[in-house]
Amino acid sequence: MSSMTAKQAAPRIRYLVAMSLDGFIAGPHGEADWITSDPDIDFAATFAQFDTALMGRKTYEQVTKAGYSSLPGMKTVVCSRSLQPADYSGITILHSVSRETIAPLKTASRKDIWLFGGAVLFRDLASENLVDTVEVSVVPILLGSGVPLIADTADRIQLSLTAHEIYKTGIVRLQYAVLPRHPQA
Amino acid sequence: MSSMTAKQAAPRIRYLVAMSLDGFIAGPHGEADWITSDPDIDFAATFAQFDTALMGRKTYEQVTKAGYSSLPGMKTVVCSRSLQPADYSGITILHSVSRETIAPLKTASRKDIWLFGGAVLFRDLASENLVDTVEVSVVPILLGSGVPLIADTADRIQLSLTAHEIYKTGIVRLQYAVLPRHPQA
Repeated sequence: MSSMTAKQAAPRIRYLVAMSLDGFIAGPHGEADWITSDPDIDFAATFAQFDTALMGRKTYEQVTKAGYSSLPGMKTVVCSRSLQPADYSGITILHSVSRETIAPLKTASRKDIWLFGGAVLFRDLASENLVDTVEVSVVPILLGSGVPLIADTADRIQLSLTAHEIYKTGIVRLQYAVLPRHPQA
Repeated sequence: MSSMTAKQAAPRIRYLVAMSLDGFIAGPHGEADWITSDPDIDFAATFAQFDTALMGRKTYEQVTKAGYSSLPGMKTVVCSRSLQPADYSGITILHSVSRETIAPLKTASRKDIWLFGGAVLFRDLASENLVDTVEVSVVPILLGSGVPLIADTADRIQLSLTAHEIYKTGIVRLQYAVLPRHPQA
């Protein structure tokens, strides 16, 4: 299996998130306190693989709540029908998600694009075959409720496991390629 | 890490299921067609670790739909408020789930007890600290909707990773011990 840090030729859109074993990326009120820090995970090396962060409006609100107006060192792109560019300097706002609106981001990126969240944006991008990888750090906990990895849909997405890593804390990092989607019969 | 097939001294209740990466154990209509067979997984060896299968009423209905009245070679115990023992020979019916009703099963078992499903029974047993392990075979697929690993609850369950195995098909088997639960503040 290939290394998790292997450099790629063309910018890819990678959905890289922490997840509970039961498939939640945040608690029912957006809680992230269950995401344990792990000294063996090299976050700087992960950050260095990306120059663009792509996120939905709700995820962006979590970022601003944490005291940031954009992701440090990254072009920050927020997908939202309602946010007005005039009100937000330092970020790019996309009013719709499609192959046409995403293509310029890929052209402009020299590194990969981090799909930072959340569930709805991932579903919408995946339905257009626009997500290249799903990379989850499975935290050893069951949340029982919360924000799901992917928003409710009847469409299945086939994956192919490309890399894995097991950490001493019990975090399991799994990296999958998203296989091209075929409409269900 | 210990072997997945290590024999244990006292019977344990083990929740052993196939799961999509987004945390579903069945599709929205109970579908199991996404569970790929894997020639490298030794099902006979897994079956041999158990002599009792414990399941909820809905899971039992799936078993009967598949043409079985009980799990071959296992004492089959169905938790249900409504089923009447007189109508079902060859299975044991438990009308309630508690430490008191489960204890006799453990005493009678010489091997481990397979918590065969589903989401509600797991939640109810776990809330009483009655489940010893969670063992998921993560299938490389996102279902987007379906029957969750655990029924909706606000209570978190902490886990400890005890074993893992990666198969060529991309199935990832993760074995966790359930840590004793403390009520949330």
